Amino acid sequence: MFDLADRGLLLADGLFETILVTRGRPFLFDQHLARLARGCTTLGIVCDLDTARQAVGDLVDVDPADAVIRVTVTRGVGQRGLQPTEGAEPTIFASRSGWNAGMAFTSPSLTVSAIRRNAMSPLSRIKSLSYLDNVLALVEAQEKGADDALLLSTDGDVACTSAANVFMIESNDLVTPPLSVGVLDGTMRALVLEMAGTLRLRPREEAFDVARLATSDGVFLTNSVRLLMSPRSLDGEPLSRRAASKIADVAKAIRSAVLC
Amino acid sequence: MFDLADRGLLLADGLFETILVTRGRPFLFDQHLARLARGCTTLGIVCDLDTARQAVGDLVDVDPADAVIRVTVTRGVGQRGLQPTEGAEPTIFASRSGWNAGMAFTSPSLTVSAIRRNAMSPLSRIKSLSYLDNVLALVEAQEKGADDALLLSTDGDVACTSAANVFMIESNDLVTPPLSVGVLDGTMRALVLEMAGTLRLRPREEAFDVARLATSDGVFLTNSVRLLMSPRSLDGEPLSRRAASKIADVAKAIRSAVLC
Repeated sequence: MFDLADRGLLLADGLFETILVTRGRPFLFDQHLARLARGCTTLGIVCDLDTARQAVGDLVDVDPADAVIRVTVTRGVGQRGLQPTEGAEPTIFASRSGWNAGMAFTSPSLTVSAIRRNAMSPLSRIKSLSYLDNVLALVEAQEKGADDALLLSTDGDVACTSAANVFMIESNDLVTPPLSVGVLDGTMRALVLEMAGTLRLRPREEAFDVARLATSDGVFLTNSVRLLMSPRSLDGEPLSRRAASKIADVAKAIRSAVLC
Repeated sequence: MFDLADRGLLLADGLFETILVTRGRPFLFDQHLARLARGCTTLGIVCDLDTARQAVGDLVDVDPADAVIRVTVTRGVGQRGLQPTEGAEPTIFASRSGWNAGMAFTSPSLTVSAIRRNAMSPLSRIKSLSYLDNVLALVEAQEKGADDALLLSTDGDVACTSAANVFMIESNDLVTPPLSVGVLDGTMRALVLEMAGTLRLRPREEAFDVARLATSDGVFLTNSVRLLMSPRSLDGEPLSRRAASKIADVAKAIRSAVLC
């Protein structure tokens, strides 16, 4: 029975992970749990990760079909006010929704959001429950006729979309914003940076603006559920397809990793 | 029965109000409900405010003792992902905790937070469930030995504390940051701006930095529960008491408004 005094509900005081399950196996499970642990450290939540692991595992056991499993950890129940209550037990629960391959490898249209990412908040780099900016950015983008929003930092650097990391290709360089721009350390982002060498791409974390993104050889987005997306346009302007075959190589490598 | 698929819990997709009840009367009730309505408009939540009003009124009817009543509105249950589900019914609930006069008119020590407010997010101006930055700023301040955090905007302007608006007095000017700095439009803030004239203070909304705050004639903080606070120090340096009698006049006016 969920307690309405839970700080996850009242103050967004918690974290989550969204994990893809294919062939009965949670993909990058250890990496997701490690990020959850880092987030707990940032928030000062003392959480038994085995409980989180078990919550996900139980849902896989019940139904091994392809799925997206979300596991949520909150600081638990608290008294009124912002001050965390000493010794409160974290709340941990998981939920399951369906996944099919059609949800991955899409080609969304993007528009630059008026909402900016705040690199001067630790929340810009962890997967906290504080996701409302992203919701508003997505809704705003769709109202403008685009599929998703591209968010910049308050300094004007490219950060991410509403739920994905951003990569661009320049010649043989694979460039993505560093976490310091206010970017989630995506598990798929880390995997792509790791795989780059074998795909003969030079991975680099470097801040860049929209103009540079728009004139790069190609742009792609990554997250745990949609894997790799190839945005077709930005604010109505087509994005370059010069690096299309390189991006196809990255997509192929991700597909193999997920499905093997 | 609370649904774990509620977007308030999963994505901080909602709002709240914290309302002081004294002598069996919710203070500034209409103003709180009006702010809730403005927040719902910002988020695109279609909420029946009468239900929120009723939820608060029911708790007052059950026990008319002095209290803090929090009413929470979420976008309701949703499917996985950021996209709001069409036609979802908002979730509305209220809770009650005790209040006594000792919670108001305190003199906290403040320290400037490393966490900044993001004026380029609409959330900086509405009372959304996305409160985790404020929680972290408060905890950080207390770890540094202070009572509360003073938050600046990403541009370096003074914004607010973890849960209060900031005012400073310069001669007969009563200055508070404009909402554009990334500031909640506090109900007590609005009341103080309204009362200023009768207290022979000239109200002004103007951005200012920490140095100017620290050398002003006096600083005070307002919120709905603690009413008016007179911070005694900022990063260990005592704040001026030159305007102490003017601040006492403001406190007295608030006390009369709340208790009459």
